[in-house]
Order: sequence, then C-alpha cells, then structure tokens
Amino acid sequence: MTKVALFAGGDLSYFTRQFDVFVGVDRGSLFLLEQGLALDWAIGDFDSVSSEEFARIEASAGHLITAPRHKDDTDTELALIKIFQAFPKAEVTIFGALGGRLDHTLTNIFLPSHPELSAYAHQICLVDDLNQVTYRLAGQHELYPEANFDYVSFLVEGSGILQLENAKYPLNEANFFERKIYTSNEFLTGPIKLSLTDGYVIIIQTKDRS
Amino acid sequence: MTKVALFAGGDLSYFTRQFDVFVGVDRGSLFLLEQGLALDWAIGDFDSVSSEEFARIEASAGHLITAPRHKDDTDTELALIKIFQAFPKAEVTIFGALGGRLDHTLTNIFLPSHPELSAYAHQICLVDDLNQVTYRLAGQHELYPEANFDYVSFLVEGSGILQLENAKYPLNEANFFERKIYTSNEFLTGPIKLSLTDGYVIIIQTKDRS
Repeated sequence: MTKVALFAGGDLSYFTRQFDVFVGVDRGSLFLLEQGLALDWAIGDFDSVSSEEFARIEASAGHLITAPRHKDDTDTELALIKIFQAFPKAEVTIFGALGGRLDHTLTNIFLPSHPELSAYAHQICLVDDLNQVTYRLAGQHELYPEANFDYVSFLVEGSGILQLENAKYPLNEANFFERKIYTSNEFLTGPIKLSLTDGYVIIIQTKDRS
Repeated sequence: MTKVALFAGGDLSYFTRQFDVFVGVDRGSLFLLEQGLALDWAIGDFDSVSSEEFARIEASAGHLITAPRHKDDTDTELALIKIFQAFPKAEVTIFGALGGRLDHTLTNIFLPSHPELSAYAHQICLVDDLNQVTYRLAGQHELYPEANFDYVSFLVEGSGILQLENAKYPLNEANFFERKIYTSNEFLTGPIKLSLTDGYVIIIQTKDRS
C-alpha cells in the first residue's frame, strides 16, 4: 500500500514527512521544493505561480501534469484522479486542503462527491494541526480514535441514515434526530460502530486550539 | 424588517455595527460587551465563559436564555430558533460563524438543514472578512453581487438540479456536469439567474486574501 502525501494550496503550516510519494498541487509543488522534499508529481494549471517558479517546478518534477485554467475539476480533484489512476490502492493524505478560501475548503471536504473519486473515499484523509477528515461509504464500519483529538463529528452526505454505537452519544432508532452534522461526539474504550444506509459520511476529528 | 447581528464563537476579527438587535451566542456575548455594543440577547450553554464572566453577561443582557450543555442543537442553532420566534421577518447576519473549529464551521454553513431553520434560509447570512454565505430554497432567484468579492460558488444541498444563467460560467442542460460545489464563478452585468429543483443552495461569495 503506497502512502501518498498531496500538498494543496491552502494552509500548509502543518505537515508531516513520512510518505512514499509526494505530490504538489499547483503552488504546493513550490512548497515541496522549498521544504527539500521530493517533488515526485506536480499537477495543476499553475495559475498561482510565476513563469520563473513554474520553470523550477518543471525542472524538478518527476511527473508533470499541466491542466487548462478553465476546467470542470479543481486542481486538487484532478491531482487525486491522476494519483488513484497511478496508485489505485494508495492511502492519500492531503495537507493544505483546509484553511484557504472557504469555497476551496468546502470542495476539498466533499471530494468523495466527485463521480471519479467516490470509490476511493476511504483512502482519502485531510489533515491540518487541529483537524483530521476521513470518509466511509454506506455500510458498517468500526472507527478508532486518532491520538490527540478531543471530539469526533459526523456529516452525512446523501439521504442515508446514520447510526452510532459505543460512542459517548449513541445515535440509534430509539433516540434518532435529524441533523446534517452530528457534532462533538467522543470515543469511549474501543471503536465506535458506525452504520450508514446510503451515500457517505464525513468523519471530522478535532481538538480545541490550546 | 429587523436587522439582527448574531455574534457566535468563531473568528470575530471582522464585524460591522449597523444593526437593530445584537445577539451574543455563548462567549460572543462577552465580545459584545467588550466592544461596547448592546447585548440585547444572550443565548447559549455558556460553557465557554467563567462564572465571573457569566455574571457580567447576566447583569447586562436584555434577554438571557440559558441552555443545558448536552443538547441536540448547537448554541448557534438554538439562538437562531429563538430569534426567528421573536422576529419572524428578521434578516440575521452571523459573525464568528466561520474560522473556528471545523465541525462548528460546517454546522453553521449547513444551518438551513436544521428542520426548524430551513424556512428562514433566505434570511440568514454568514460573514467574515473574505467570505459571505447566503442561501436560497428551491425555486427561481435573481442574485446580485456584493461589493468587493471576486468569486461566487454554489453548493447544492439535497438532490436538486442547479441551473445558472447570466454568469461567467452558465450551467444548464447543454453543459451540465454533476458536482457538489460549483466554484469560482463570476458575475457579469446584472443578476445571475439561478434555478434549483429541490433542497437549497449555499451561495458563497469570496475574495482572495490580498
């Protein structure tokens, strides 16, 4: 299983370095070079870099994929599609997906809504210093806590019914109430048992800024 | 029509002062007092203030509504429900809805998904220094640009089909493609004509950080 790090154009003040493949999305490519990390893939329309900066990216990138500026996909969607074509079993961690322009953040949070990415939902993870976003398709799943987070929230995308057991606040037929997002739940000992009847669920582990 | 400002617990570095009624949500109540603004309503579980701070809020609030800490609604949802009960025609601008914990930001962006708030979708607006979030229920609408924003994006909530005319990138039967969010569109001269068949649409006007 290939561990891929994808560096997007949002807030890159937090990232880690233990990956097999490094992918720069647009200006994220420059960030990888500045950090002395490998630029295995550089993907985007590169409208956020100067021609001089693009020349540096072009000279350093293992694989370079340039896209037209006006397209239906965002640069990050395009990069993920290309990476899953090359590494269908990859686990992809995306840095810089959050904390930029609000519309970009939201597009990233709903990446599995893209028709070409939905099958890979469980292989995508967005990370910054306070948040970790993962996904599960409809079905039954066991979730384990990540270290250092305080809360876990669940955003249901689609018309599915979510149920949660072995959580601080179980959600089941007996106490069901309809919300788009079920926030501020917490892990007990062992995994949270989650079931979803349709669509997918966005799982957000967070902590308060200390 | 009553113009209401609601101060929530996220990033309050941007706000304006021209409103008829000021509402503090939890710690937002303290912010209103610190800014020398009226604290007409203070609503929340007040788990984010000390007992001394709560005493100041209690002494100053025109109306005080305290809620249990463990409840199905967030403090902001509760505050909006109470405000629309008191002012059914109010236009409510929410500051501090964005830029805090990611799960809180997302709950705020999807406020019209709350069964008791959906009817008021078009009366709710979230604002920070770079973003303005508004809503329209299914139907036909004309949208006008807000000054100083560069882009307008559309997030469809529910299974409705969105169409856009008189926009830089029209979206219609001829060029339809399915996305959860249609980003980085722009206004031309005159309003964008929007139609939606079901659910509601979240309209995000943004600008790049200069």
